[in-house]
Amino acid sequence: MPVIRPEVGDPIQHGGDLAQARASFPDAPEPWIDLSTGINPHSYPHSPIPGNALARLPEPYLAERLKILAARAYGAPSAMHVAAGPGTQILLPVIAGLAAGWGGGKAVVLSPTYAEHARAARLAGLEVTETEDMERLADGRLAIIVNPNNPTGRIVQRGDLLTLAAVMRAKRGLLVVDEAFMDVSEAESVAGAVDAGGLVVLRSFGKFYGMAGLRLGFAISHPETVVKVENRLGPWAVSGPALHIAGEALADADWQKAMRERLKADAARLDAVLAEAGISVAGGTSLFRFIRGTRAQAIFHRLGERAIITRRFAERPEDLRIGLPAAEDWPRVEQALRTI
Amino acid sequence: MPVIRPEVGDPIQHGGDLAQARASFPDAPEPWIDLSTGINPHSYPHSPIPGNALARLPEPYLAERLKILAARAYGAPSAMHVAAGPGTQILLPVIAGLAAGWGGGKAVVLSPTYAEHARAARLAGLEVTETEDMERLADGRLAIIVNPNNPTGRIVQRGDLLTLAAVMRAKRGLLVVDEAFMDVSEAESVAGAVDAGGLVVLRSFGKFYGMAGLRLGFAISHPETVVKVENRLGPWAVSGPALHIAGEALADADWQKAMRERLKADAARLDAVLAEAGISVAGGTSLFRFIRGTRAQAIFHRLGERAIITRRFAERPEDLRIGLPAAEDWPRVEQALRTI
Repeated sequence: MPVIRPEVGDPIQHGGDLAQARASFPDAPEPWIDLSTGINPHSYPHSPIPGNALARLPEPYLAERLKILAARAYGAPSAMHVAAGPGTQILLPVIAGLAAGWGGGKAVVLSPTYAEHARAARLAGLEVTETEDMERLADGRLAIIVNPNNPTGRIVQRGDLLTLAAVMRAKRGLLVVDEAFMDVSEAESVAGAVDAGGLVVLRSFGKFYGMAGLRLGFAISHPETVVKVENRLGPWAVSGPALHIAGEALADADWQKAMRERLKADAARLDAVLAEAGISVAGGTSLFRFIRGTRAQAIFHRLGERAIITRRFAERPEDLRIGLPAAEDWPRVEQALRTI
Repeated sequence: MPVIRPEVGDPIQHGGDLAQARASFPDAPEPWIDLSTGINPHSYPHSPIPGNALARLPEPYLAERLKILAARAYGAPSAMHVAAGPGTQILLPVIAGLAAGWGGGKAVVLSPTYAEHARAARLAGLEVTETEDMERLADGRLAIIVNPNNPTGRIVQRGDLLTLAAVMRAKRGLLVVDEAFMDVSEAESVAGAVDAGGLVVLRSFGKFYGMAGLRLGFAISHPETVVKVENRLGPWAVSGPALHIAGEALADADWQKAMRERLKADAARLDAVLAEAGISVAGGTSLFRFIRGTRAQAIFHRLGERAIITRRFAERPEDLRIGLPAAEDWPRVEQALRTI
């Protein structure tokens, strides 16, 4: 049994906490600009949420429709290969629990990466190894790769992922590929390959569509695994507002295409401003830029004093992640970086 | 390890599925009136959901504030005794998993009741016994009582619950008291007694506030248990819309008081109409009325033909649950019952 110990699952610090930013920089001039997340500042222009979407229990046919739309948008083989939940976050311990249920043992995480994966695996009773070496990923029951990676932007090739998935499948293990930032990446999704088994692909709705408050995420996998995840979540796992907004956004290929172009231009603009300030970008995606170097802490503090919060990492002081500004925030960001 | 078998966790049928109602009664005249749930038809009149509540990650200070408000509204000892999640439903296997983690074994459910409790306990690897005998509740690791009960309305006295909680605590087990309909009941909550340990109280936001699409539920327990539940849910478990609306509704004691009176009057009105039709009410709460008898199936069908859906139970053909109509739906409901 997975014994859940408080010390194992203790909360991890994340971006997006403006109250904490205010506490760290009490003299910074309001309003704050939040560049501490990788969430699209250009939110999807949805129609108003109908009253029934809030008042009534989410209807099963809408949840089914969401799965059809998600399968199309993400390239899953079918709606039967898609489980939807209230945020990808809450799916992580459920999926780690599936791997642990097959006999416990070890989880290997390609690192450095989003810290919640290791936490979720530990909660499920797995022993976690973090490694930068792809060769070691198959050492456990559960292999976890974020692709493209957050925060570095590192891309693992589709062929390598499928080879690893086959190895994990052969040993009755599981490869989790977290494609939270795939919507804006040059990397290739493996969502279309889940039917062979041994593979779970995670997709996050909130980041690309700029709707992180909605809490909506997907696990794409073999239908047998999908059923297990769905049974664990139970009925009405996705809220009415999420069903309404994602029902529009996932079907809107025109917006998706235009947004990819816009974010690419935004990222190039940010890179240019950073370059002018003598800061070179080491990686990232079109939703965040990644900086690595001895100036990281100084940049974090200088921007913080100007009420611009970025994301640093307690355990890696040379790393810094910078999100994209909203349209109206560019002048202040450019000004701040010019005088850094 | 809890092995999750599809056949164990297979979905259960619930109320609130209008598409299914339409399929069952294809000739019924639209629009449908949904009396198949126990959700308040008078939704809380919240202010508009701000764009940031959808776009941004829910801020930790808002989640903390929600816990403070919930502790006050539900009578929990403090905010530290409250975990909030995206619907009570998703908390059930998490809590059953805690009990199973302490050594597996048996769960005993006071029945008949909301079927998801037994399903969640089985998912967590527990062997489930359903009983009508309070004396047998302490036979397992996990005891589950819905109070007031759904659908019968049966009330268990506070003293009996606290005695049972003490027994469960002494054997390092857990008593779960699901108070989903406590807001409108004459029953007494045990939320104030969780600090002694061995007890988890569940509260559902969506039912009393008429906001079931929002997905928001609470587990009230000893802080050690709360931490375990929260670690399992991870960060951002409650959506921005839920934080916004519950932040208003839980603090609105005037609305709560007036709504309790209104629902009591509504329930009395429904009882009177049912009595005129020769149908006697066997129990329930102010959010639903419970009928038991040989006419249950006939009433279900007659109302269905008139596009009024109620809740029947496959395994108990003499049981029927009828929710409260919205203000504008009374004439049709009264007319339908008069000619039943």
